Amino acid sequence: MSVPAGSVPASEDLAIGFADVRAAAARLEGVAHRTPVLTSRTLDAMTGAQVFLKAECFQRGGAFKFRGAYNAIAALDDETRARGVVSFSSGNHAQAVALAAQLHGIPATLVMPEDAPPAKLAATRGYGADVIIYDRYREDREAIGKRVTQERGSMLIPPYDHPNVIAGAGTAAMELLEDVGPLDLLLVCTGGGGLLAGSAVATDALSPGASVIAVEPAAGDDWKRSFDAGQRVRLETIPRTIADGQQTQAPGVLTFPIAQRLVKGVVLATDDEIRAAMAFLFERLRIVVEPSGASALAALLAGKVDAGGKRVGVTLSGGNVGLAQFCALLGP
Amino acid sequence: MSVPAGSVPASEDLAIGFADVRAAAARLEGVAHRTPVLTSRTLDAMTGAQVFLKAECFQRGGAFKFRGAYNAIAALDDETRARGVVSFSSGNHAQAVALAAQLHGIPATLVMPEDAPPAKLAATRGYGADVIIYDRYREDREAIGKRVTQERGSMLIPPYDHPNVIAGAGTAAMELLEDVGPLDLLLVCTGGGGLLAGSAVATDALSPGASVIAVEPAAGDDWKRSFDAGQRVRLETIPRTIADGQQTQAPGVLTFPIAQRLVKGVVLATDDEIRAAMAFLFERLRIVVEPSGASALAALLAGKVDAGGKRVGVTLSGGNVGLAQFCALLGP
Repeated sequence: MSVPAGSVPASEDLAIGFADVRAAAARLEGVAHRTPVLTSRTLDAMTGAQVFLKAECFQRGGAFKFRGAYNAIAALDDETRARGVVSFSSGNHAQAVALAAQLHGIPATLVMPEDAPPAKLAATRGYGADVIIYDRYREDREAIGKRVTQERGSMLIPPYDHPNVIAGAGTAAMELLEDVGPLDLLLVCTGGGGLLAGSAVATDALSPGASVIAVEPAAGDDWKRSFDAGQRVRLETIPRTIADGQQTQAPGVLTFPIAQRLVKGVVLATDDEIRAAMAFLFERLRIVVEPSGASALAALLAGKVDAGGKRVGVTLSGGNVGLAQFCALLGP
Repeated sequence: MSVPAGSVPASEDLAIGFADVRAAAARLEGVAHRTPVLTSRTLDAMTGAQVFLKAECFQRGGAFKFRGAYNAIAALDDETRARGVVSFSSGNHAQAVALAAQLHGIPATLVMPEDAPPAKLAATRGYGADVIIYDRYREDREAIGKRVTQERGSMLIPPYDHPNVIAGAGTAAMELLEDVGPLDLLLVCTGGGGLLAGSAVATDALSPGASVIAVEPAAGDDWKRSFDAGQRVRLETIPRTIADGQQTQAPGVLTFPIAQRLVKGVVLATDDEIRAAMAFLFERLRIVVEPSGASALAALLAGKVDAGGKRVGVTLSGGNVGLAQFCALLGP
């Protein structure tokens, strides 16, 4: 496990504090689902731990992303919001922005990679958004997003590097801790780090003794390398992993300092370990979790953290995987 | 839709009344899960109804069957119970009896068909039961069950034709009605009729204005034929359908009179309609429901009942389908 190296930023230099998470929770009240916390005797027996699964696969839009997107849009002033929003995403954030914009009655433009799962493209369009397709291995989604922002006068809602997106994401861990009480460990699926940073802030406030651990795909270990180096390290190529929501090349500018201060370490899950976790969730818990959303549980099931005898929270961060994609990944 | 023909039995001649369902609920308190009632804006928009899904796929043992099996075993006197229990089942009742026996600390013997889904065989053995395999197209499971009963002195726990099994099954509808209030329609997945009869008794007491509708696979329309004839009709062969929990050849001796009195009618779901319902539940609700468990929703989605503007309860009766089986049924 990688632990943070180098100098650690002070609390007052972080992008958000727990008050921002609380404010997000107030904006999300009655709009986002308070998703269930699932437990499994089988899982506890397999891990020797007491495991609490925060099932964001049952969130609106199918992933935790709705929390941050809705919070960021709700926090805009009326005039800005009315001009609409733009975002770029491999999928779940796109759906979240599209749905949150629809609920606010404003236009949304989404810049999505051409190899995004068809189910995610269809769902985003289903929420009434305008979708712009790009080639993720040749074009720069951020540049396209910025161009659209300028052309249309819309506000960019980034997928993680935004205080209100991070604060919104943090409400998932806040709910988990409110529901089950203090934890010893919290394993968080990590891509750009919005869920990680938000969860770390909420956990620092509500369960300060808990160790928050980032879990990322082994093929895209930008967080591990960054923790080892004590600074943000950028991977040269986009990681090739089944965890399509965790193909980020570097930790976020805002999310990394929060993690340096509040996250205990980083562990990796291989694609095969993620497949095993998805299969376990399907057959034993009867729920559908996408590859990125199963990575934290994958690390736990693969013994990547010392969980024996501990109270362990695990994020299941999303469930947007189509039948065809699911069976291609896990079928015979 | 078939409606009951011929003379209808009087209430006092039925195998159970609502007091039996209440007694079952007391025995199951703190042992069975009070399963969630799921709703979906998408589903409501597709059907024009307000739909409440009783998700027994999240019950212990993966299906509503645990309710009846546990209730029947809990109601035995201590001496009888100590000699153990025997049952025959295509799978879910087997798992339920095995688990309920394990929880009571007594031995269980299960007579299961050789073509039962491997996941169900494995789960039944996993609960510590002794499994006897038979050929479902050549041997009589009831005869095998009775022989084992005599040899071992164990009590037979039948899959549906037993008052305490029916009463236990009825607690699912009781919970649904307690949670969401009166309904206009309740669609019930029907095999031998334990869930149907128990649900009808609970609904008659708690939501007397509701129409209870049985849903069975089109390939095995023994309930429809029986309703049309006004008496139990036995199919000549075991129906070949993907709904392996609904391959009964005739309504139960105890369950049919209850249905004649309290069930409004029978509708059929084809295997393709069941596949479509399973896919919808996977992709939109992110839950895993087995073919038999999706049949009631299949009938609703296929427009087999007039649901527009109504408050409609739907049982999702079980979720025991292995990954390989699921992808073989629904994959590309």
